[in-house]
Amino acid sequence: MPAKPAKDRLIAAAFELFEERGYDQTTVDDITERAGVGRTTFFRTFRSKEDVIFPDHEVLLSAISARLDGSTEQTALVAVTEAARLVLRRYVAEGELALARYRLTRSVAALRDREIAGTQQYQHLFRRFLHRWMGGGQDAALRAELMANAVVTAHNHVLRRWLRGQTREPEAEFDAAMADTVGLFTAPAARSGEHSVVVFQTTKDLDSVLPGLRRLLGETP
Amino acid sequence: MPAKPAKDRLIAAAFELFEERGYDQTTVDDITERAGVGRTTFFRTFRSKEDVIFPDHEVLLSAISARLDGSTEQTALVAVTEAARLVLRRYVAEGELALARYRLTRSVAALRDREIAGTQQYQHLFRRFLHRWMGGGQDAALRAELMANAVVTAHNHVLRRWLRGQTREPEAEFDAAMADTVGLFTAPAARSGEHSVVVFQTTKDLDSVLPGLRRLLGETP
Repeated sequence: MPAKPAKDRLIAAAFELFEERGYDQTTVDDITERAGVGRTTFFRTFRSKEDVIFPDHEVLLSAISARLDGSTEQTALVAVTEAARLVLRRYVAEGELALARYRLTRSVAALRDREIAGTQQYQHLFRRFLHRWMGGGQDAALRAELMANAVVTAHNHVLRRWLRGQTREPEAEFDAAMADTVGLFTAPAARSGEHSVVVFQTTKDLDSVLPGLRRLLGETP
Repeated sequence: MPAKPAKDRLIAAAFELFEERGYDQTTVDDITERAGVGRTTFFRTFRSKEDVIFPDHEVLLSAISARLDGSTEQTALVAVTEAARLVLRRYVAEGELALARYRLTRSVAALRDREIAGTQQYQHLFRRFLHRWMGGGQDAALRAELMANAVVTAHNHVLRRWLRGQTREPEAEFDAAMADTVGLFTAPAARSGEHSVVVFQTTKDLDSVLPGLRRLLGETP
């Protein structure tokens, strides 16, 4: 079996030490010693001790940008969902490392702050993208901000449930959560000029009126 | 004219000094000296130098809690809007002080982090309230979190526009923003068990199907 790359060894060593001694009590020298890697290699790989906790943050931001930029007007909302999914998948793929990070960010204020700042960077990407997609301008600004924050909130909601061991089906929950979230912003206003969305409130039994509705509104060419 | 209370003198002195010398370069002793107030008085009034920047945070949290708790099931959404309005009004009433805080929180990372943490406390209050109002449980958890974050996002959107001098009518913008935001979560799903909401998408001309729809779903006793 080939030796792990220096980056992986540094990450593994850092997380071990943070859990053994505490984050503040661990120095970069402790980490490089445990990993069997030189200090120069550490600082070629990470900017700081904090960076080791979020080793893929920049990569994820770039991947989100690329996924959004690769979409068209018609596929924009799918792109938003799929871009958020990249983050969820990355955490799930990390497994134990993601769980250790969750314990650390809950107990070390500096790391929690760093994580919140990172979350705001995601939100900013989504907001800018959605604002442009909505046509820009002041009218779309609030809506784009609301939708971007909602997408990140829904993602974090499911991710947190997975990190806490409350779900073993994070992707299925993510699909449902994102459908609900995107639905808030897309229904009932139809985006296509060819369709009308009819919202009716009735006290009648649904089963009794559905056949008539289907006849009345049935699919037409 | 009676002398200002010590609290107001300390706040005014602190903000003057932060702008003159920078936040990090100002000590509590500098502030008490400028305000002509003893060190003991400072620490009876504030826990720390940071606290002077957000002197009403705890009071606002309590006011929000009280406004929410004083509502009924029927007035819950009005209470959410009015509770958020308390924060907006407080900032607008502060005037120049709020603008100075905005400049500080944008330039001093520790203060920005503190402000974000404060925002999360607001969100938490709204989320807990809305979750209970929605009947609790896992199904309502995501929706309550989305709605709470949306309310705070809408509030902050308008507040930021006011702080940047982009609007002189913050309350009117707030009313419109909150109506849009609450509307995302209240239409078209009916909350009453006696009603069904039917959402249908059709390519037919609306005018041609509406009479039939009205007959089919017409109001019944």
